[in-house]
Amino acid sequence: MSEFAFTTSIPIRYRDLDPWDHVNNAVYATYLEEARTEYLDTVFETPMEARDFVLANLELDYRAPITYDSGGVEIAVRAAELGSSSLTLSYEVRRSDGVVSATGETTQVHMGEDGTPTPLPEEWRTAIAEFEPDLS
Amino acid sequence: MSEFAFTTSIPIRYRDLDPWDHVNNAVYATYLEEARTEYLDTVFETPMEARDFVLANLELDYRAPITYDSGGVEIAVRAAELGSSSLTLSYEVRRSDGVVSATGETTQVHMGEDGTPTPLPEEWRTAIAEFEPDLS
Amino acid sequence: MSEFAFTTSIPIRYRDLDPWDHVNNAVYATYLEEARTEYLDTVFETPMEARDFVLANLELDYRAPITYDSGGVEIAVRAAELGSSSLTLSYEVRRSDGVVSATGETTQVHMGEDGTPTPLPEEWRTAIAEFEPDLS
Amino acid sequence: MSEFAFTTSIPIRYRDLDPWDHVNNAVYATYLEEARTEYLDTVFETPMEARDFVLANLELDYRAPITYDSGGVEIAVRAAELGSSSLTLSYEVRRSDGVVSATGETTQVHMGEDGTPTPLPEEWRTAIAEFEPDLS
Repeated sequence: MSEFAFTTSIPIRYRDLDPWDHVNNAVYATYLEEARTEYLDTVFETPMEARDFVLANLELDYRAPITYDSGGVEIAVRAAELGSSSLTLSYEVRRSDGVVSATGETTQVHMGEDGTPTPLPEEWRTAIAEFEPDLS
Repeated sequence: MSEFAFTTSIPIRYRDLDPWDHVNNAVYATYLEEARTEYLDTVFETPMEARDFVLANLELDYRAPITYDSGGVEIAVRAAELGSSSLTLSYEVRRSDGVVSATGETTQVHMGEDGTPTPLPEEWRTAIAEFEPDLS
Repeated sequence: MSEFAFTTSIPIRYRDLDPWDHVNNAVYATYLEEARTEYLDTVFETPMEARDFVLANLELDYRAPITYDSGGVEIAVRAAELGSSSLTLSYEVRRSDGVVSATGETTQVHMGEDGTPTPLPEEWRTAIAEFEPDLS
Repeated sequence: MSEFAFTTSIPIRYRDLDPWDHVNNAVYATYLEEARTEYLDTVFETPMEARDFVLANLELDYRAPITYDSGGVEIAVRAAELGSSSLTLSYEVRRSDGVVSATGETTQVHMGEDGTPTPLPEEWRTAIAEFEPDLS
């Protein structure tokens, strides 16, 4: 299994909490989105608006709650699978005490101008392969 | 003082709550936005995208908390002031038990294509005056 | 396959949208949470605070975007699997034009006072079985 | 006029944006809440849960939009007024290019155990006066 190629820190906001005093489950999807955006900005050189990646699937396994006083989370991201027109990313949401609060996976599909899945441009494949040498 | 010309109902979402078990203060701004959008859609006939109203000011006075089991809130809206290029709306956020949870006010400025305040079109003034006969 | 035993309507808020003019992916998790809360309130008689269900897993398949002018979504919920200490729910997020925007699944685990998975109380099993006669 | 005694940085999240590609107006209230929490944690030594400050009023003047590519905002906070049982804070929301995106003000009321306004404890007054020597 390959290591995580990328990590980013996200400060927890008080608004992320729900009545259980924990970060609400839906906010994890926002954390992943934030980490994904930064990951893609790091791997690719073209700005985000030019990349028509549409989110097709999201999966989250919640393991341990996050409280406000933990300050922030670290999100680790790596490419898990590269399809002809899709990219699957894996995530770990890590608390400041090192505990993995959740693992996740998202699949993004590259859309062409006609709104249907379109093969990933060769320069994207190259950029991902260079950033993630372990990816088969 | 004129009556409220418009009311709309908004169901409370669990995600609206914060650790105090109350609707979070920022969510009130979202409730006002929702009511404002519906108010403007009711008063004007042109669709929202065509109306370049920019929010310039927001004020909220919080009086009583809203809990999840109250189910929904009613937002009352009325035009409070009509300037040459601005519209000020007043709001009441009413709980299902009739208690006013908050009062609010927003001022929207009409922007021209050059991004500067521009007089409200005459048909807008007419539409508002017809909808709010008490507005001076 | 069993039918959906429960549906609820959720009005879209302008704040649910992101720069693509579509309901943001994380908001779907909030829609599911809202529908799940109502489903559980309908099936069980004990109030929500007394039910220590912890969300363990969330999965969403996004099929078609939701725009603001569609007004609201209908969320359909049914029990998909009943474990010894867990309940898996399936969802459909339906647009007002009848198109299924997303399908989802969540697994909730019943937690005991010691914070570990605990068998579902017999009266809960009975309540679910009565509400979902097709559930094996 | 006194200077701002405290500043904090908040990274913008993609989810903060609305269809105008700008940080949504309600999110500014969340930015203020975040800065306020940090300000109070800095000024006082007692943890947040022990401080029964209830938000009574929020005011925001929006001057210039914030886009995602600006990365983050800086929120400046200072005490503007100290009442017998209330504290008013002033804010500036500063973009990374130095432009003030919004100014704001919130008034928090100190609540006693009976849920009514209660004089600020003397040690709080001392702590604020030490942190904000210009405050009259």
